[in-house]
This record gives sequence, C-alpha cells and structure tokens, in this order.
Amino acid sequence: MTELNRNIWKLSPGDKNCITDVPGVKVGHVTLDEPLENGERICTGVTAILPHPGNLFRQKVAGAGVVLNGFGKTTGLIQLNELGLLESPIMLTNTFAVPAVTEGTLRYLFSRTPEIGDTTGTVNTVTGECNDSYLNTIRHFAVKPDHAVKAIEEASDEPSAEGAVGAGRGMVCFGMKGGIGTASRLAGGYTVGVLVLSNFGKKEEFQDERYKGGRYSGTEGVNAESDGSIMIILASDAPLDHRRLTRVARRCAIGLGRTGSHMSHGSGDIAIAFSTACRYPHQLEAQTFSCDLIREEQPVMHTLFQAAAEATEEAIVRSLMKAETTTGRKGRTVQGWS
Amino acid sequence: MTELNRNIWKLSPGDKNCITDVPGVKVGHVTLDEPLENGERICTGVTAILPHPGNLFRQKVAGAGVVLNGFGKTTGLIQLNELGLLESPIMLTNTFAVPAVTEGTLRYLFSRTPEIGDTTGTVNTVTGECNDSYLNTIRHFAVKPDHAVKAIEEASDEPSAEGAVGAGRGMVCFGMKGGIGTASRLAGGYTVGVLVLSNFGKKEEFQDERYKGGRYSGTEGVNAESDGSIMIILASDAPLDHRRLTRVARRCAIGLGRTGSHMSHGSGDIAIAFSTACRYPHQLEAQTFSCDLIREEQPVMHTLFQAAAEATEEAIVRSLMKAETTTGRKGRTVQGWS
Amino acid sequence: MTELNRNIWKLSPGDKNCITDVPGVKVGHVTLDEPLENGERICTGVTAILPHPGNLFRQKVAGAGVVLNGFGKTTGLIQLNELGLLESPIMLTNTFAVPAVTEGTLRYLFSRTPEIGDTTGTVNTVTGECNDSYLNTIRHFAVKPDHAVKAIEEASDEPSAEGAVGAGRGMVCFGMKGGIGTASRLAGGYTVGVLVLSNFGKKEEFQDERYKGGRYSGTEGVNAESDGSIMIILASDAPLDHRRLTRVARRCAIGLGRTGSHMSHGSGDIAIAFSTACRYPHQLEAQTFSCDLIREEQPVMHTLFQAAAEATEEAIVRSLMKAETTTGRKGRTVQGWS
Amino acid sequence: MTELNRNIWKLSPGDKNCITDVPGVKVGHVTLDEPLENGERICTGVTAILPHPGNLFRQKVAGAGVVLNGFGKTTGLIQLNELGLLESPIMLTNTFAVPAVTEGTLRYLFSRTPEIGDTTGTVNTVTGECNDSYLNTIRHFAVKPDHAVKAIEEASDEPSAEGAVGAGRGMVCFGMKGGIGTASRLAGGYTVGVLVLSNFGKKEEFQDERYKGGRYSGTEGVNAESDGSIMIILASDAPLDHRRLTRVARRCAIGLGRTGSHMSHGSGDIAIAFSTACRYPHQLEAQTFSCDLIREEQPVMHTLFQAAAEATEEAIVRSLMKAETTTGRKGRTVQGWS
Repeated sequence: MTELNRNIWKLSPGDKNCITDVPGVKVGHVTLDEPLENGERICTGVTAILPHPGNLFRQKVAGAGVVLNGFGKTTGLIQLNELGLLESPIMLTNTFAVPAVTEGTLRYLFSRTPEIGDTTGTVNTVTGECNDSYLNTIRHFAVKPDHAVKAIEEASDEPSAEGAVGAGRGMVCFGMKGGIGTASRLAGGYTVGVLVLSNFGKKEEFQDERYKGGRYSGTEGVNAESDGSIMIILASDAPLDHRRLTRVARRCAIGLGRTGSHMSHGSGDIAIAFSTACRYPHQLEAQTFSCDLIREEQPVMHTLFQAAAEATEEAIVRSLMKAETTTGRKGRTVQGWS
Repeated sequence: MTELNRNIWKLSPGDKNCITDVPGVKVGHVTLDEPLENGERICTGVTAILPHPGNLFRQKVAGAGVVLNGFGKTTGLIQLNELGLLESPIMLTNTFAVPAVTEGTLRYLFSRTPEIGDTTGTVNTVTGECNDSYLNTIRHFAVKPDHAVKAIEEASDEPSAEGAVGAGRGMVCFGMKGGIGTASRLAGGYTVGVLVLSNFGKKEEFQDERYKGGRYSGTEGVNAESDGSIMIILASDAPLDHRRLTRVARRCAIGLGRTGSHMSHGSGDIAIAFSTACRYPHQLEAQTFSCDLIREEQPVMHTLFQAAAEATEEAIVRSLMKAETTTGRKGRTVQGWS
Repeated sequence: MTELNRNIWKLSPGDKNCITDVPGVKVGHVTLDEPLENGERICTGVTAILPHPGNLFRQKVAGAGVVLNGFGKTTGLIQLNELGLLESPIMLTNTFAVPAVTEGTLRYLFSRTPEIGDTTGTVNTVTGECNDSYLNTIRHFAVKPDHAVKAIEEASDEPSAEGAVGAGRGMVCFGMKGGIGTASRLAGGYTVGVLVLSNFGKKEEFQDERYKGGRYSGTEGVNAESDGSIMIILASDAPLDHRRLTRVARRCAIGLGRTGSHMSHGSGDIAIAFSTACRYPHQLEAQTFSCDLIREEQPVMHTLFQAAAEATEEAIVRSLMKAETTTGRKGRTVQGWS
Repeated sequence: MTELNRNIWKLSPGDKNCITDVPGVKVGHVTLDEPLENGERICTGVTAILPHPGNLFRQKVAGAGVVLNGFGKTTGLIQLNELGLLESPIMLTNTFAVPAVTEGTLRYLFSRTPEIGDTTGTVNTVTGECNDSYLNTIRHFAVKPDHAVKAIEEASDEPSAEGAVGAGRGMVCFGMKGGIGTASRLAGGYTVGVLVLSNFGKKEEFQDERYKGGRYSGTEGVNAESDGSIMIILASDAPLDHRRLTRVARRCAIGLGRTGSHMSHGSGDIAIAFSTACRYPHQLEAQTFSCDLIREEQPVMHTLFQAAAEATEEAIVRSLMKAETTTGRKGRTVQGWS
C-alpha cells in the first residue's frame, strides 16, 4: 500500500510505535495454521500481553475494563473492576479457546506461584476473544493450554509482530485481513501503547481515504457472516488508578469510531487498560499505602485521552496494513489491505 | 461557509433534517440576551424537547441516559435509567439555571396534572446543561422558572432554530460559536433525530477539512477557559426499550469523536435517548402489558446505530454552521464558523 | 419505648453515636411547620451535611454515590462518580424542593467562593430527597433557597437532632413517623458515621421484635400511598477513595434490609459516602499527588463494611425512636414508634 | 437440628421449595470426592441449572447478572447484560474448574446445535464459581469437561439435592459445611425459585438465633482462610425482561445480608436471574416481536422483590441445614450445622 497519511494525528509515536514502548510491557504470540479434513482448517492462535517482567500475582498493577459493546465473552473483568487490579497476563484468542487459554494461564501462574489456591486465595485471569470462524474451524478446539503457556513464556519487549499472527491469525476486519496491530504515543512525559485484535466491520464502512490521503483501496472485501469484535489493550506508565484508567479506556471508542466502526450489534468491543506506574504487592503488613496519581484537571489528562484515541486508531489501521492475504477453512481467502 | 461535504454520510436525512422529523416531537427555545452592569451580560437561554404532544406524565415513553463523560450536572438520569421511562420534557440550559428550569418544568407539569404529588406520586424531570460562562454572566441566575414554562409551551414541530438560540445562546464549541444543532436520519423505515447543545473542544481539534472537502476555515477560535460539555438528545420512532435505547445512545460518542472531540476531562458529555413508538400509561389496571420491540440481530439495529452516529455528527456541525458571531460578557466575541 | 436491644450489633458506637463523630463533619437542620388553607400544611424542611469546616469547593474530599433503587431524584451523582470528589455540602429535602435547595446551596458557595463560574469552572452540588407528600403539601414549594443557606450556616458538630426535624419533618417510615436518624461505629481505628432520611416501608415489614428483644410495638401504622425512599449519608475518616467508598456504601443495603426493607419499587434508596481523610485542593501546580489509602485485603476493610451495615441499621431505627407523633396536611397524623 | 423457625418469612414456598418449582427448570449435580497423595483430596463438583428442557441456544430466555461484590471469576455476564438473554445452562463449580466446565458446556451445546460457530455466530455460556480450596485440592484440576456434560444431561426437575453435593461438595459457609441450597416462593400468581452455592462468612457472623427461635447452635466453626463467595441463581416464570430481572436480582442482597453476611472484601457475591415466561428464538424473520411484561407499579413487583429476598435467605440456611460434616484435604473437617 501507499504510505500512511500521518497528518491526521497530532501526538508522536514512541520508538517502536508499539505497546512495548511502555517500559516493562511484553508481548508474545503463538500462531496455529494447519489443514484439517474436508476443507476445514486450523487458522488461529494466542497472544499474551504481560504488564511487567516480574511475578504478576505478587506484584499487581492498576487495571480497568470497559465494555463498549458487550456481545463478547471476555473473562476476568468483574474482579478487575471491583478491585482495580490486574494480577495476570492479558490473553487474547478465539472465542471457543477462552477455556483452554485460561487454563494455560492458570497453569503458568501456578508454576511460578505455589501459594495460589493453597496458602493464599485464587487468582483472577483475563482472557479476551474474537470469533475467527470465517477462516478458522473454531469448533475444533485447536488451541490447548500449552499454547497459552508458550505465548506467555516467549513474550518479549521487542516490537510485536502484527497482522495475521497470534490470536490475529484468522481475524477479518472491514472485510479485509485483520488481526494484531499496535501503536504508541508520547503523552506529556508518559507513554501510551495500544495493541488491538481487530475483527469487525464491513468493507464499505472503512474510512480508507482518511489513511491514504484521498486514494481508495482496491482490496475486495469478503462478506463475513459474523459481526466480529475488537479487543483493545492499552498500557501506560502514567500514574493512573482504576477510575482514571476507566476514563482513558473509554476514549478508545473515539479511535475505533474514526476508522468507520459503529460498534455493531454483534461485536464484542472491549477495552482493557493498565498502568505500570505503581506495583501493588499481593500482601503487605501495613494497613495503608500510597501511590502517586495524575491530577485530572492538569492538561496531561487530556493528552492521555488523545493518546488513547490516536493509538487505538493507528493500531487498527496497522492491523490491516500488516496482515497478509490469508486462506482458511472452506478455501476462503481474505485479502490484505493494499 | 462553503457547502457541507455530505459524502461522509451514508443515510438520508428526514424532511426537515431535524429532531422534529420524529413524529410528535416538539422543540421550543427561549433566548435571553441583555447587558448588565460592568460589562457583564445575560447571554443564555432555555431549550425544551417534548417527546409527544400529549400529557407526558400520564403517557410516558421509553428513555435512557448514557454518561459519556460525567463532568456535568444533568438531573433526572437516576430514575430514567431505573425505570426506563421518560415522563417529562427534556430541558436544556446553563449549569446554574438547572434549579430554575427544573422548578419551571415542575410548575408546568403541575398545572396540567393536578394529581402529581397529591393523589399520586411525584414526577421525574430531566434537565441537562452546559457551562456558558465565557459569554454569559452565569452567576447572575438570569433564567427564571417562567422561561422554562415558556420554552415548553411554545415548542412546535417546525424545523428547530439552530445556533445561538435557546440554551445555545452563550455556548462555545471548538473555540467558535456553537449552541443548538439538529439533524435526522431515515433508518430502515424509522426516523432517528438528534438535537445537540454543543459547548466543547478547542479550535485545533475540529475536523474542519472533513466537512469542507479539504478546505480549512479561517475562523479564529477563542481560547475559552472551560472544558465545556455537550448534551445530545436522540429521538426515534423505532420500537426500542431502555436497554436498546442505551445501546443506541452509546453510538452518539462515535459521531462526537468524528468531529474531533476526545471527550475532555472537564466536559459533561451526556446522551439521552427516547422512543416514541409505545406510550406507557401512568396507571393501568392490568398487571402486565406488551409493546413491540426491535429484534436486535436484524440489520435495522445496526442502521439505527449508524443513524445515531451520523445524526449526532451532523447536528454538531450544524450547531457551528448556524451560529452567528456573538458578543457576550466582558466584551468577549466568539466568531461563527465560516 | 423500651430500651433498644443492642446485642444485635458487634461494633461500638462513637461518643455521640452520630455522623458528627467523624471529625470535622457538621449537620444543620431547618424545619418548616405551619398551616395553609383548606387543611393543607407545610410540614417539611432541609438538612445539610458538611464534610469539613473549610471551603468545600477549594478543599474537596473523596466521595461516591450508590443507587440501590433508583426511583428518586437525587442530583449530583453523575459528577461525584466520574471524578470521585465531593465539593459541596450534601443537602436533603423533599422531592420538589430540590431546585430551591440546590439554588440555595449554589448561592452559599458563590458567597464564599467568588471564582466559581467566573475565573474557574462551575461547582457540582448534591441534593437528595424523599417524598413527604403524605404530611406535607409538597406542591406548595414552601422551601426557599434561603432555607438551604440557613441549614448550611447553622450546621454544627454537636449531636444532631433526630426524628421529625429538618428534611425529616414530614417523612413516614414503616407506617410510623420517621425522618432523620444517625449513628456511628468505631472501626479499626477509624470512625464511620451514618445519617439517614427515612421514608419507606409498611408497618408489617418492620422487624420490630429484632430491636425490642421479642416485644412487639403497639404503634398503629398509617397506610401511606407512596412507596417512599431513603437517603443514606455515610462519612468516615478512613482513607478511602471513590472505588473503596463505593464498596462501603453498597453495604448500607445490608443494614437497610435488616430493618425489613425490600427496597420497594417506588423507593429511591440512595447511599452517598465520603471520606475526610484526604483533602484534594481545587487547583494544584503539581501534575500528580498522593494520598494514603486502605489496603483492602486488610481486616479493617471488612470492619468498615460491617460498620456501614450496623450504623445504617441503627440510624434507621433511631429515626423511628426519636420521631414524635406528627400531624400534617388533611389532618393526617402519623404516630411515633413506642 | 431443631425445626427451622419459619415465622420470619411471609410468603409460601412452592411444592418442592426448590428452584425446580419454576416450571421447566432443571438441576443436575456431579460430585467428586476421592483421596489424592500426601493428604490432598478431590472434594468438589459441578452443578448445572437449565432454564427449560428445550434447545437453550435456539430458544433463549431473558436473563440478568448483578455483581454484589466482584471478587469473583464468573464468566458470561458481559453478554448476558448487553443483550439481556441467556442461551446456555448456568454452571457452578470451583474457581479453577471454570475453564473445564465452560469447555464441557460448549461441547454439550455443540453436540445439540451444529450451527454454532459454523453457519451462525458463537454462544455465550455462564459459569459461576466459589473457591473450595479449604477442603478441595483446587490446584489439581480434577473437574473435566465431561463432568459438566454429565451434570447437564442428568439434570431433572425433581427436588434438587442440597448441601455437600455438586459444586457444593467442598464449600464452607459461616465456618460450617455449606454448599448447595434451594428454596422457592409463590409470589402473586408466579413462582420465584433460588438456588445458591454458599461459601462465605465466619461462624460468629451467622444469625443462628433468627432461624432457631433464640437457640444457639453448638457447631464449632472452622477458621477458613478464604473470604469465600456466594453464587445466587434466581428463576421465575413471572414475565420480566433484563431490566426488571436486574431489579429483582439486586434484592438477593437483602436475603444474603439477613443471614449475617456483610459481603466481605474477598467474596464474589453474584446473583444471576432469568425468566422462563417468554422464549426468544435465535433467529426470526420478523423485524420486531413482543412479550408480555410486568407493570412495575403493580403490587406484584414488590412481592417479587420480597420473594427474591426470602428465597435467597432460606436457600442459604438450607445449604447449611442439609450439608453433612465433611472431611477434605489435609485432614480438615468442617462440621454440618446442628
């Protein structure tokens, strides 16, 4: 494709233009792609986002989940929003792989943290999903717990692969090949990074000309049956607690809308945000503790909102730009944007 | 200004391109503009939206309120969202006129409905607001209950006045003169109408070129201190209950975001939606009742979402297009968009 | 009545067994009681709760509002829950006096804080209400803005009057005379105080025997038409932010339920909580700040939950115990509990 | 134990005093209990609640989930609350068995409904949990997908087993043996049934004397480390949609509180309600449809609230009454209430 028109954005990206620009954040992918009988095909995967390199259960971070449109099966938001704390990797996969990925995440956490479920309480894991059944034989349960463990263990702070990788392997966005995309923004001394799993929208809804400076794409979109979904993961090193993260995460809808989405009925559009600025130990003798937090009337809060909108929008566009044409089940091919 | 570029929208507007395209809906404005001492000035007003021409308390309609960003003082949403019913006009005014307008609305309802607070329960009124203190001497309490009564009584189903009228008299949007704007869309056999009170954003955030086909406006924006707000009122004759209206109202954020807003920290961004398709009597002998409702997996639901986004966006743009250059307190002048 | 059976509670009350046990909290009442023509009667009032003796706008406190059942017209919760900050007194009155009381509160705040609405933004006030139309001619608009100003100015940290005073003048609870009640609990080194405005329930729902050790009351309950409501205001000096206060405030439902309430359909059951532990300046040069907060897994959090439930329950019971038999409009008399 | 004091309740139970009094509702249990090495023990299980005997995906029912305290890992509430529809059995198990039970539920649904994930969209399952790690070696992952399938397939409309069965096998409530309990109430021509999985509270919090008419129990409570949780499943044949079910489900907190709970910090207290009155086909040609719904101002709504509170309370008490003394991992024994 031609160069992306970046004039539509005001804030500068970080060095990698990736969620891993937020110090400590790591991303890992496991991609599954192999034929089955009768034209069916495994075309799916797992993606893991780790808030920091330490023990996530023993050193929690502030987190929040926002349901933009709730036609989705993401797990873990109840406790995330009650306590405002994230204590596990955030996992992405296909809709019916949520159980396997959750079990794998538990197994990973158990192996590093023998006290969970034994001498201390349980652990809350967070698994998001989109429905990749246009390209992937989703009823096959191809994803196993070990794939989740591997995605977590191989996570790194390098620039993340994008497009038809990890959980994005079989996703379709605006009728074109979608999947994993990521972008970042520098915002008033802090960094905001976003990673999306894009799987929504029809070709004619895409705001093509916005990104190509008036030139329209020749990609032919498929008419996928599913309404699709999008998972939006936002990381920042700005000192934000649950309430502030909720406010920032809500602005992801702005970026989503600018690409052309109307958050359609059958779409699970969910944003999950976390801040790495403060670590909350699982246990502490002291009855109270304290962390620095952003004063919301300061201009930086507005800049963080803007960064959330811009990075979400660019991450979606990049999920299209980077995704190669892919053939899945029943011989269906979805073209990459070009 | 030059002609509006309508290619950015897909759905057709109704006859009047106004919230009053929804049958039965009426709008009324009272505009206040007069000098005070010491360069202070009354530059404010009241706007009333009536869901239908009958007795609103005795014949309620389904309604829902969605808080996009809650830096605002709108009243009435608690009961609207618990019961899913609207039983009063929706009133708009400046922040500190909410008490006077609410009292006026109560007085209006009392005069038509002697049973309220006597032989039956109380009534829930809905009053939204934006802060017009850049142009209006808001501490002056210029709006009186009678202004609210007048706005209700003079409401009509004619095309609504737009720009610096009614509650929009003193509002500032994207650093330019804003205020009242309205638009409508035909959506799968139904009509969606939106009326906004626009009072948010900075000049440089406005997506000028989107509406003018690449030409930038020469209007100089003021640097208003306030973060501002927007009230978005959505009406439809589609058969929608509280939950469905909540979903439709959330899509107003999409239209808002496309104009350039990031729903800034200090902005009270609130959408209130109602459906005129079914009237719910205040009292009924029967223990149950039934109303037709949209099947959400039908394509029409998506079209209603799209209509909400498009009509919100155009209503905001029209609030700018129609607002004349206005001079308020302290000799401050805010230019109309041109 | 006979002595209250206190064995049902585990935690000790503070010195005054009153919300004013929380250091700095003040309560003020204005009671209105006078005959009108035709058997109608003014039998109502205003109650003000001040979080601290300083300028409430310039020195805010953390706050949260929880809607247990939303058949009510309380104002101010949208912003309270978006920002998690309380910047005004909490006012209580009758349903239709909300506008007058809100205007009075604004006038009070303007008189102490000239920058509001002029050189800084607006202010969010919080006014709660119950419907006292069984005893009070509520359509008469007897409460004026000055009554609110007076309730605020006369507020003190003395033990609050209870029963048929202030906003409680015309309230009916469990078919008996209700109104203002207050109680407090010592909780792990902190104090929790609750003040209620009780106006809900039928006589046969009241858990009479729980409080009298098995003896039933002889009070004859009236059959008030209205479903009534309850406002529950909770104060604490424990270091709690918005999210934690939300959790504490939700436990007020436990105390409410133990008295016999099922939070009936027509009841506006609303809990508003604030913490005096940290003051948040309206403006600050620094981009961040920090406050101590409770570690929620510490046993003190559970004790605070218990204190919220116990103090709410006792405050309701005391609103009955302390309310004298009262005669209002149309010669209606409501007996005190005895 | 001595006879239960039923004077504390006003409404009559149904024939079976069980959630299966609601016509069509079925309950199934799979109980797992066997020793492992080193004093560890499998002491857990699965419980399934089926809203009706037909195909649950093709014929959905109205449903709603309410988070009373969100320290829990229940899945499926996001979509349940967005669409207001339940399209799967409700499954209960231990915290770490949620993935296995969810996968089993999917496998069950796939076997009856080949179109899921192939020619139509995905399916939303609902799995609730409590932490039974005091008695059960929860890290062992003893529950397999087939156990879920079996619990669903063996479900019947007979009176459900109670106590230490199914998901209740290893649960501890008020320091005594808890688990599954159920009760029902006749409410204005309709039936309300509740089934709980009880696993919360300390011995000294239990309102023993309320149920035994003043006599205290001699059961010695264990000092379980975990804060525990409670899952509350409510069924009714009253015509209630999502919003109304949400209101009914919130009243479960009243019954919970009356037993002595303060919804402690570490407790996942979650109520899920559904109505069998109307079935919503997965697909329908018509653009709209209509179902009868309760008029909320009718007295029956209040009776439904009362029924929710009473049935929840009795179901909890019965989970204690019916649970036998049980020995689990590490030789730990939890006594039944007597």
